[in-house]
Amino acid sequence: MNKSQLYRQLNVQVDLAVEAHQLLRGESGEEIPGVIMDEQTLDHAKVTIITVETDEGVDAIGKPKGQYITIDAPEIRTNDYSIHDSITQILADQLTELMGLREDASVLIIGLGNWNATPDALGPQVISKTMVTRHLYQLSPDDLKGKLRKVSAISPGVLGTTGIETAEIIRGIVDHVKPDLVIAIDALAAGSLERIGTSIQLADTGIHPGSGVGNPRAGINEETVGCKVIAIGLPTVLNAAIIAHDAVEGIFKEFVTTPSLYKLYKGIKPEVLSKIIDDVLSPFQGNLMVTPKEIDSLIQTTAKIIAGALAISIHPGIDREDYERYLQ
Amino acid sequence: MNKSQLYRQLNVQVDLAVEAHQLLRGESGEEIPGVIMDEQTLDHAKVTIITVETDEGVDAIGKPKGQYITIDAPEIRTNDYSIHDSITQILADQLTELMGLREDASVLIIGLGNWNATPDALGPQVISKTMVTRHLYQLSPDDLKGKLRKVSAISPGVLGTTGIETAEIIRGIVDHVKPDLVIAIDALAAGSLERIGTSIQLADTGIHPGSGVGNPRAGINEETVGCKVIAIGLPTVLNAAIIAHDAVEGIFKEFVTTPSLYKLYKGIKPEVLSKIIDDVLSPFQGNLMVTPKEIDSLIQTTAKIIAGALAISIHPGIDREDYERYLQ
Amino acid sequence: MNKSQLYRQLNVQVDLAVEAHQLLRGESGEEIPGVIMDEQTLDHAKVTIITVETDEGVDAIGKPKGQYITIDAPEIRTNDYSIHDSITQILADQLTELMGLREDASVLIIGLGNWNATPDALGPQVISKTMVTRHLYQLSPDDLKGKLRKVSAISPGVLGTTGIETAEIIRGIVDHVKPDLVIAIDALAAGSLERIGTSIQLADTGIHPGSGVGNPRAGINEETVGCKVIAIGLPTVLNAAIIAHDAVEGIFKEFVTTPSLYKLYKGIKPEVLSKIIDDVLSPFQGNLMVTPKEIDSLIQTTAKIIAGALAISIHPGIDREDYERYLQ
Amino acid sequence: MNKSQLYRQLNVQVDLAVEAHQLLRGESGEEIPGVIMDEQTLDHAKVTIITVETDEGVDAIGKPKGQYITIDAPEIRTNDYSIHDSITQILADQLTELMGLREDASVLIIGLGNWNATPDALGPQVISKTMVTRHLYQLSPDDLKGKLRKVSAISPGVLGTTGIETAEIIRGIVDHVKPDLVIAIDALAAGSLERIGTSIQLADTGIHPGSGVGNPRAGINEETVGCKVIAIGLPTVLNAAIIAHDAVEGIFKEFVTTPSLYKLYKGIKPEVLSKIIDDVLSPFQGNLMVTPKEIDSLIQTTAKIIAGALAISIHPGIDREDYERYLQ
Repeated sequence: MNKSQLYRQLNVQVDLAVEAHQLLRGESGEEIPGVIMDEQTLDHAKVTIITVETDEGVDAIGKPKGQYITIDAPEIRTNDYSIHDSITQILADQLTELMGLREDASVLIIGLGNWNATPDALGPQVISKTMVTRHLYQLSPDDLKGKLRKVSAISPGVLGTTGIETAEIIRGIVDHVKPDLVIAIDALAAGSLERIGTSIQLADTGIHPGSGVGNPRAGINEETVGCKVIAIGLPTVLNAAIIAHDAVEGIFKEFVTTPSLYKLYKGIKPEVLSKIIDDVLSPFQGNLMVTPKEIDSLIQTTAKIIAGALAISIHPGIDREDYERYLQ
Repeated sequence: MNKSQLYRQLNVQVDLAVEAHQLLRGESGEEIPGVIMDEQTLDHAKVTIITVETDEGVDAIGKPKGQYITIDAPEIRTNDYSIHDSITQILADQLTELMGLREDASVLIIGLGNWNATPDALGPQVISKTMVTRHLYQLSPDDLKGKLRKVSAISPGVLGTTGIETAEIIRGIVDHVKPDLVIAIDALAAGSLERIGTSIQLADTGIHPGSGVGNPRAGINEETVGCKVIAIGLPTVLNAAIIAHDAVEGIFKEFVTTPSLYKLYKGIKPEVLSKIIDDVLSPFQGNLMVTPKEIDSLIQTTAKIIAGALAISIHPGIDREDYERYLQ
Repeated sequence: MNKSQLYRQLNVQVDLAVEAHQLLRGESGEEIPGVIMDEQTLDHAKVTIITVETDEGVDAIGKPKGQYITIDAPEIRTNDYSIHDSITQILADQLTELMGLREDASVLIIGLGNWNATPDALGPQVISKTMVTRHLYQLSPDDLKGKLRKVSAISPGVLGTTGIETAEIIRGIVDHVKPDLVIAIDALAAGSLERIGTSIQLADTGIHPGSGVGNPRAGINEETVGCKVIAIGLPTVLNAAIIAHDAVEGIFKEFVTTPSLYKLYKGIKPEVLSKIIDDVLSPFQGNLMVTPKEIDSLIQTTAKIIAGALAISIHPGIDREDYERYLQ
Repeated sequence: MNKSQLYRQLNVQVDLAVEAHQLLRGESGEEIPGVIMDEQTLDHAKVTIITVETDEGVDAIGKPKGQYITIDAPEIRTNDYSIHDSITQILADQLTELMGLREDASVLIIGLGNWNATPDALGPQVISKTMVTRHLYQLSPDDLKGKLRKVSAISPGVLGTTGIETAEIIRGIVDHVKPDLVIAIDALAAGSLERIGTSIQLADTGIHPGSGVGNPRAGINEETVGCKVIAIGLPTVLNAAIIAHDAVEGIFKEFVTTPSLYKLYKGIKPEVLSKIIDDVLSPFQGNLMVTPKEIDSLIQTTAKIIAGALAISIHPGIDREDYERYLQ
């Protein structure tokens, strides 16, 4: 049995490139042609940069060409605020480089997700903490120049509350606001529990709203929107099928010393295992999220880190010492 | 002294056509050329239809050509739910006629205003109670046909929280959603206290977001948006200058028997009175709202009436008996 | 391996008496001494009444003596509002009988849980929809008599946001308000997925706030509070360990035709299986919830059903035809 | 005509001691026996301490014996965050002295007011930003000692949403939590516009919930609650009658050069003026608030200042440099 085959059978989506990469490598143990990985270990965070370079890489990893930066910072789950400051700065540094903003660039920040559903509210929470400045430029452009860039921000809601695909709404707004850069923030689905609330992914490839919850829709990316799109994502849930799979795997690993048994397990066809897991999860047809009880405070903490890093990286006049003042 | 001159001096906006009309008539006592008024008295509501027909009418009343229907229903402020039902049906009837929807028409409902500021939250509150159906049409069009029309809905936020003019956002969305009709819901400023929370205005002339709070911006109307726009407005506040003015007028009326004094009052120039009122209101430069203490429950009640009337008038399969089931 | 032993090992709590009963019966296949079960099948709901009569029953089922009424209504998850009406009436009928209110009785409704965490917000949501009347009695007692009973209501928050045990807050309030009956509403943990959002439990034995999330605290019941306490609970989450267990069980059942294997599975000690599942769930030490993606709308729907049933059963003047008017 | 007589006629309440004092002094120009006033001018704030010492003072000023500290800081309305920091520290200093907390003292913070009505939501907003610590003491008392004191916090809601007098709820909670100090935070009514959102009053005399909105109820003070009660209040609204009065006064002052006219004005009996103003405000019988359009952001800013000052003054381990980290 092969984990990535199984995930496909179960319709389990792997949102983080670093997890998709791990899944692939885990099996083959080999380099993936067309995909480069680079790791740095910093105080309080590990930064992994995966670059999908060729079409061959795209086919292997199932993600568009581009850069995927993951900041793994398990200490987000502590309440140590000076560590949160450090993580905010690390995120800001990566964002600054990835954005490469011109001095007079304007940025539109989009908070994807549903503000009424805790684990899906990351985007709207970041927006509610973000100071907008675009409209102030009409009043006092000279005061702001060199200190604050033009920022606009919106949480467009989700298909179920608007009746409109999020991508349609965003394209419409971009047509009129004409930002130089769109930053879209979304809650993701993790492939493993320890990443929930602690891994932040930046990608210069845009985003597919709702993809984290199973229904692929029109993407939000440079091609469809007409300007560069950076996606910031954080896993807040896990597909319940992964828990089910891991438990089964765990029990067989326990019996690894009974070779006949382990062989039996390895021989189970993905479609058989997938059917069993489907049956276990059937009352909600797989639309089940696993989420920690502390998810609402994790969302608060990470929304503050992301909003803080956006303030530092977008505005030349805001730094690590004073960013908290500019959060709403 | 002339009230409408004074209001202009004080920058007091009269959002309701019925009040603008009253203000004009009150002075001249004469018919206004190019403006027709029609009144009906129903159980629990008075319906006044003002039609601005000619350019001369536009100049006089200061409103674009079109129909302005006001439903005055002071009993909204009671807690009698069967009366609220009647008012909902009256509003639905007027809406049905004004909209003139084709069988397969689609409607985009916009909730203007700021959901964080109670008296400005009418629009977002109506949206939060409105069932959207547009996206369901992709799944089961035949089940819905003839029963539910396509409805999408959004609360785009306000300039201060998005950095984007609301009209820009709406135009962008309309370009992509292409509805047959836009309905925009907004909190208005009243010209007199008794209309707060009790007068609902429908207009087929569109809306100017923010105009109720003093900053005129690009309009949302057929010309700018590309489809018919119906505005639904309800006064939730009063400009504080009106209270100041009315108190002064009240005191002089008291002395109407002292002719010299009343003459003196009538002789005060609008700019003098306006300056005095400005001074009284100066710490907030006139940006003051007068609102009843019960405003949050008035908003809840009226949002339910409006959302109910929208459900009844838009969807053929929903009527007075069952509309409450379809409110979120 | 024995499921209820395993649940104890895994610290999985079974909130619904009907599930605790099933778990016990499932193993022994026998009647449980001191526990009586009665079932009725109605249109749109099955009503199961479990009565724990003796100390022997208490020991077996792990619940205090008293009545546990479960209304299983899977059609809650449909959007058919007339079915929701029927379920509301069924719940109201059971509540009326269980409460046995005197004509002039007063009721205090408590919404337990955290309004910032979607699956835990059931109680606060019911409170926000509930009309309070106790304070109106001071103004117009004669108008209300025979129509509306005295209702007060509060959502006291949770330990993490107040720093105070919920039971302490409630006892303090009861000491001063002196209601005849306390009704406490709480989100529960289910033992199986299909009960999430669809099984409503009424119990005349009171409640243990927070017990649904693992930390037992001082109870809210007649003994500690000084008046009758009825608990209304609805499962909104599932312990993730149950998913893990069920997947393992599913895979072995698949191999039931390989007797040696199934025997092996049956021979696994609860502590071994428990350890494996603990490892799978380790990053959050078992503090993981499984919840359907649609949980926010399920909470809205069920909060309306519960608030509606409370209105009908508490107030003589409110019935199935008009209860929606009295919901806030 | 005498302003304080008129206010009594109009049922206009003067919540700030500093304004009640001004009103009295304004008329007589003399010292008020039994009332001492002390003023300090600091950077960014003026601190006025009024001490009501004798029964004679109580009768004159209409406030219980005790200390009333007002911090007037008009720069709250700017967006200069370093000034906000200074004001936070000034408030913290006054609070520290007024509280005089023992090392192991515990504090219960009460957020009065209605979180659904923007100008009344100050108290709940402060609570939502406040970190509670009381429950952590059960887990790790030694870690916290000397750094954090025990804080619990609750927003009990208002009579209209609970059906229970707030004072009853608080007394019940205090009986069980047994804090050394209660701090009650409430939105007040100002006597003049420029104090809205910019004057913070501390009083060691407790509070009367709802008094700011016209209905006097049982007090929350040492006598009724059993421990010291400090009230923190901030005006967020103005009674509309004051605007009406000031406009009338303004117009007559304009004609001060016409002695006969000014004499006429001075001769108007308070009951005549009061009746005229009542008529102007009649549709809502005086239950009208005047509030600036920017009230929601003013509430956010001041809630942060108050929550920050509470954190600094209550917890020895938190200071001006790091308090923002401890705000929720």
